[in-house]
Amino acid sequence: MNPEQFRDAGHQLIDWIADYRKQIESMPVRAQVKPGEVRRQLPVEPPQQSHDFDQLLADLQSIVVPGVTQVQHPMHYGWFPSNASLASVLGDVASTGLGTLGISWESCPALTEVESVVCDWMRQLTGLSEQWQGTIHDTASTACLTALLVARENASRYSQNRGGLQAEAMPLVVYSTAEAHSSITKSALLAGFGADNLRFIDMAPETRSMSPVALRNTIAADIENGKRPAAIVASVGSTGVTAIDPVAEIVEIANEFGVWLHIDAAMAGSAMLLPECRHLWEGVEDADSICWNPHKWMGTILDCSLFYVKDPELLIRAMSTNPSYLQSTVDDEVVQYRDWGIPLGRRFRALKLWFHLRLDGVEEIQQRLRRDLDNAQWFAEQVRNTEYWQVVAPVNLQTVCIRHQPPDLEGEALDQHTLQWVNSINQSGKAFMSASQLDGRWMVRVSIGVESTTRGHVEALWHLIKKTVAG
Amino acid sequence: MNPEQFRDAGHQLIDWIADYRKQIESMPVRAQVKPGEVRRQLPVEPPQQSHDFDQLLADLQSIVVPGVTQVQHPMHYGWFPSNASLASVLGDVASTGLGTLGISWESCPALTEVESVVCDWMRQLTGLSEQWQGTIHDTASTACLTALLVARENASRYSQNRGGLQAEAMPLVVYSTAEAHSSITKSALLAGFGADNLRFIDMAPETRSMSPVALRNTIAADIENGKRPAAIVASVGSTGVTAIDPVAEIVEIANEFGVWLHIDAAMAGSAMLLPECRHLWEGVEDADSICWNPHKWMGTILDCSLFYVKDPELLIRAMSTNPSYLQSTVDDEVVQYRDWGIPLGRRFRALKLWFHLRLDGVEEIQQRLRRDLDNAQWFAEQVRNTEYWQVVAPVNLQTVCIRHQPPDLEGEALDQHTLQWVNSINQSGKAFMSASQLDGRWMVRVSIGVESTTRGHVEALWHLIKKTVAG
Repeated sequence: MNPEQFRDAGHQLIDWIADYRKQIESMPVRAQVKPGEVRRQLPVEPPQQSHDFDQLLADLQSIVVPGVTQVQHPMHYGWFPSNASLASVLGDVASTGLGTLGISWESCPALTEVESVVCDWMRQLTGLSEQWQGTIHDTASTACLTALLVARENASRYSQNRGGLQAEAMPLVVYSTAEAHSSITKSALLAGFGADNLRFIDMAPETRSMSPVALRNTIAADIENGKRPAAIVASVGSTGVTAIDPVAEIVEIANEFGVWLHIDAAMAGSAMLLPECRHLWEGVEDADSICWNPHKWMGTILDCSLFYVKDPELLIRAMSTNPSYLQSTVDDEVVQYRDWGIPLGRRFRALKLWFHLRLDGVEEIQQRLRRDLDNAQWFAEQVRNTEYWQVVAPVNLQTVCIRHQPPDLEGEALDQHTLQWVNSINQSGKAFMSASQLDGRWMVRVSIGVESTTRGHVEALWHLIKKTVAG
Repeated sequence: MNPEQFRDAGHQLIDWIADYRKQIESMPVRAQVKPGEVRRQLPVEPPQQSHDFDQLLADLQSIVVPGVTQVQHPMHYGWFPSNASLASVLGDVASTGLGTLGISWESCPALTEVESVVCDWMRQLTGLSEQWQGTIHDTASTACLTALLVARENASRYSQNRGGLQAEAMPLVVYSTAEAHSSITKSALLAGFGADNLRFIDMAPETRSMSPVALRNTIAADIENGKRPAAIVASVGSTGVTAIDPVAEIVEIANEFGVWLHIDAAMAGSAMLLPECRHLWEGVEDADSICWNPHKWMGTILDCSLFYVKDPELLIRAMSTNPSYLQSTVDDEVVQYRDWGIPLGRRFRALKLWFHLRLDGVEEIQQRLRRDLDNAQWFAEQVRNTEYWQVVAPVNLQTVCIRHQPPDLEGEALDQHTLQWVNSINQSGKAFMSASQLDGRWMVRVSIGVESTTRGHVEALWHLIKKTVAG
């Protein structure tokens, strides 16, 4: 395809995207396709000759779109807000159109330096001090794995340069809670710590936040038993119930015992754009690494996960590779982001943050976040004030965890009732929420924060829920 | 930004990209900026209010573009071809415009199923049998780490469910060569094996391919010494000199000793689109995992790294997480790609492959690859037939490794001469090549294969090189 053909097709595609975004509200929220239904509409064998763009666009509309769960739909309240602001989409379009290669500073100086600048802008916007230096990873899963790998090497005095983790006599231990995101467990297992060396610290029953007393006791017991505490992962806004671990108290323990503290604020980091929310991670300055995802509530198109450390040398020491074909004459003067994470090659992800911040502006983003916080409080209030309805976890941000509990239902019967009404709504396509377990019982997470979700949509949701439960 | 504002700005951006692509040949290949030059043109503080799109586009042109090393330039012969075909760019635009969320089949059924289909198309197009199932990772680094993690768990009978790698009494060992990509070493260290348990097997001096005899002897000695061989990484087309490890012989040894064999064909995988090149990985069917990057020579926009395994259950067993908020009623019937790799969330990367294959067609891609192979042979012939010039490694594909060796130069003086002429050309912006070390001495890699590189450009390069060396 040459640039003029690209120009013609590109204009069609931009119009298609704009039209698509305008029509989202008329589509079902959850994709209505059955397993295999998309696949069966595509040829089993690959195309040999080139096809018309018109035909491809028609297939995109008729085959792909019905298979998309519309997370940009204003009635999407599932999982978490995965906003894809159109300003950031333009930055992503610029990135792909430029076709840059990010394997070293030399391969695209602008990619490296714009990334440094926008990470520093985001640092300032979330109230972090100048001691933090950031980079962009794909997801919080990768950032957490990176943090645990660095913590592992730090605690084992760079065992990777000797016999690896397998030669270590004193087992390294990782601490988190059962409420933490599934990627924390996954990272600990992938990093080789082993399930036996992953501790789920007790939580305060109401808030599901990590108990500092239990953390201290567990660490002390491990040391007594000849183990080495290597890392603590504290959640600031867990996926399940937006639990907030007490960072200020945890950081004291981490520093006392010399344990790496990683802050997982994947979802809640967006709230730190609001000064009034920053008390939620008070103490963060004394942690060792922080991750949060602009690609969630803030709305920079996926994938865009910020990862900050205070001492990049520790990252580099654990991650650096420097083959001769990547060396250049300016290596001493520049940042090499390949040494700040797992992949060698990177896309020009900074452009989507740059476009997002410049085109939407921080103030507009902050207003939207505050709107969502208000909507969540309003929604929680409706639930609390209605007979047989409960808000089952503190509403720390924009997620409201609810349950309808008629007096005659408990145990498995209650679970069935919960799953029935939420699945009924989800299947209808009118709205979408996530069922989730809390203390072994199903509840429903209403995660408010899609860019297009207004108070009117939240009112419509509450009306729909009550109507569905009433039968 | 609303859809109508997006439409207006998007049309401008598409025109900008089309114009940019048409002008690339007039730009210097290597960015001419000094370290810090891009950064200094950007404000230290983040924007508070929104800016005009026109101003942003002007900054993109005046600040970012001069900081881009033009890997799409027809005179780019550095590193490897990192083609960004405009057909695939459109697929990437569609992906970002759709704003989908890939965390489970339910969150976007089409994302999962189109990925299954295009991975299967690519399987067919590279002559692999139906026993292989594929997924898309960001880069070969991540795919290799994934392969080594699965190999680690497989060899240790899932030590992650117990005390982890650190509780294993018999050290696990990984085998590769010094010629293998830097990400192999990085992956082995990140996976916790340790440098002491990474073996660089002897290579045939001429071809720098792994010696099967040495591999067998090393494995046997390790077993004798109470170690457990866990994984072999064979390179099919190394980055340095396109070395091809003898897969058919290695696979026999791997199977005999029950060792996981990962095939790293990151660069050379594109050649497998040509039936006449498939002898280069003969024996691949009996390996355990394969990775190659359509985002290199084939030209699907970065990031697009294919990862194939024969038994996804082994991947899932090492990588699966299944928190309640991600469960759905169809989980038994569908693929969950989050369990096939490290990150939970994924972009709709399959669209760029789908668009690339449908809009350009396989035949056009194959023709281009054959053109590049011919150009490499022609170039090598010119070098070989010119006094004091040498082709210093076999030309297995599209990379030609050369050195100018006047009779009076050797050792460090020769190194200085080599670096001088290649840096002189690179700094001029007229062409770009990578200097690389071979047996401790610098040589120059001429990696042919940019989409726009014709025979005329290769002729111009040879003319430029000779002129530069002549002074």
